Amino acid sequence: MDFSWETATSAVVDSFRDAPDPRFRAIMESAVRHLHGFVREVKPTMAEWNAAIEFVTALGKTCTDTRQEVILFSDVLGVSMMVETLNGQQEGTESTVLGPFHLTESPARALGDSIDLMNGARPCVVSGRVLGSDGIPLPGAEIDVWQCNEEGFYDVQQPDVQPAGNGRGLFRTDPEGRYWFRSVVPSHYPIPTDGPVGALMEKANRHPFRPAHIHFIVRADGHEEVTTHTFVRNSAYVESDAVFAVKRSLLADFAVKRDEATAKRFGVAAPFTHAEVDFVLQKKP
Amino acid sequence: MDFSWETATSAVVDSFRDAPDPRFRAIMESAVRHLHGFVREVKPTMAEWNAAIEFVTALGKTCTDTRQEVILFSDVLGVSMMVETLNGQQEGTESTVLGPFHLTESPARALGDSIDLMNGARPCVVSGRVLGSDGIPLPGAEIDVWQCNEEGFYDVQQPDVQPAGNGRGLFRTDPEGRYWFRSVVPSHYPIPTDGPVGALMEKANRHPFRPAHIHFIVRADGHEEVTTHTFVRNSAYVESDAVFAVKRSLLADFAVKRDEATAKRFGVAAPFTHAEVDFVLQKKP
Repeated sequence: MDFSWETATSAVVDSFRDAPDPRFRAIMESAVRHLHGFVREVKPTMAEWNAAIEFVTALGKTCTDTRQEVILFSDVLGVSMMVETLNGQQEGTESTVLGPFHLTESPARALGDSIDLMNGARPCVVSGRVLGSDGIPLPGAEIDVWQCNEEGFYDVQQPDVQPAGNGRGLFRTDPEGRYWFRSVVPSHYPIPTDGPVGALMEKANRHPFRPAHIHFIVRADGHEEVTTHTFVRNSAYVESDAVFAVKRSLLADFAVKRDEATAKRFGVAAPFTHAEVDFVLQKKP
Repeated sequence: MDFSWETATSAVVDSFRDAPDPRFRAIMESAVRHLHGFVREVKPTMAEWNAAIEFVTALGKTCTDTRQEVILFSDVLGVSMMVETLNGQQEGTESTVLGPFHLTESPARALGDSIDLMNGARPCVVSGRVLGSDGIPLPGAEIDVWQCNEEGFYDVQQPDVQPAGNGRGLFRTDPEGRYWFRSVVPSHYPIPTDGPVGALMEKANRHPFRPAHIHFIVRADGHEEVTTHTFVRNSAYVESDAVFAVKRSLLADFAVKRDEATAKRFGVAAPFTHAEVDFVLQKKP
């Protein structure tokens, strides 16, 4: 009960000693030690601590039904990627962040359907297979896909411009574990810059852009689910994603194909862009 | 651009390398290292990280013009006390937290006035001196005082019950550096328990109470200002203040006096409670 700089951390850690849940107790103990460690290291002035309080307050206040600024903060500090990587499958396709634009229900589509409902300028075919980590194809696997349009906007960001479900689809692999669908080549785009995280990025002289990518969640019976992206290999910002989500294994060639026969097979006109992406799922233990 | 568990922290620290303000850069580097250290230590599940995101979101959303839940969180983790102690004067009266109930303008009152506008049951006199750290009394020093009533509520918490300014006063020391005023003995009270911090305290099995105290800010020309409390020495919870604000040097005896002559001098009836509290201010460099 005699507060001092020297005993503060042990006193606060000790205040959690009667928490019934041992995991909660361990988390709070670690949080207190690291938070106090930060304060001991930077020795904030009153003005600086007040600015931190105001920043956290603004994070919460910026959140709405369609915007989550606290996750965005976790994203730009690389923490979302750490947590995703910790919890993602340890073999097979690497995972990356879910991001804020996933919807619970993507519209179910047939193999070969287009998820581009607006006849974009650069048609693109994405195809590949879903495999177990033993290399065996997985028929009936579910592929949930979502992406922004050629201008870098998701349907939910432009409800007056894009029809709901544009850039989204739920597919199932065929008996050989194959999938294919049509779309447009996605664009790089900025994370929201008009909130406290945007102000932080500006103060840090960091750009807000994410390289072009398509989101996937892939599921198959008896296997781990993987949340990931396919990145357009030569996209701008692929070396400096604002949310640190690029893993080298997730880069894919989006190559222009001029072969009429292949174009016809996918139901597009040549020339078209083609990305071939396989997903490998780890067996559940 | 190849995210990995091993390189994540250096990559995020490095993203702040071009921040023009070196102090901001140092703060962010420390924040990232400690936040990542926490994540590396506790290895949160997705559900746990989502709970943390929801908690921070709720902190911000609970804040209003009259409530600051982020400061409350800083309080119950002992961080407010660390920052106050870092920035408070290093000799003389020790500082403690400002708390959320200070108003910019306390009503100016004459020495001997009562700050209890409701004729409370346990009248109390607080008196003492303001001194420089060389022991010389400081005439004309300003004493800004605020406290809760005998039920543990500040005026701003009960606008329909207490008149504005109840429990508040701005006094100036006399030519001998003395001050005295009348009040009631304050009560211990709980911090707000109906928000996310209250839920955290409950999960931690921590009580939400603060021991009885009177707040002071003391100012004198040429001296450091001190923000502090006087605690009622035998109050409940003095050994376990929910915000860790007790320093032993700030405990004061609130003694019952039966001496009619002293009572008359202070304008109260015997018996009355009396606390004698000197404030010592450090000279400005």
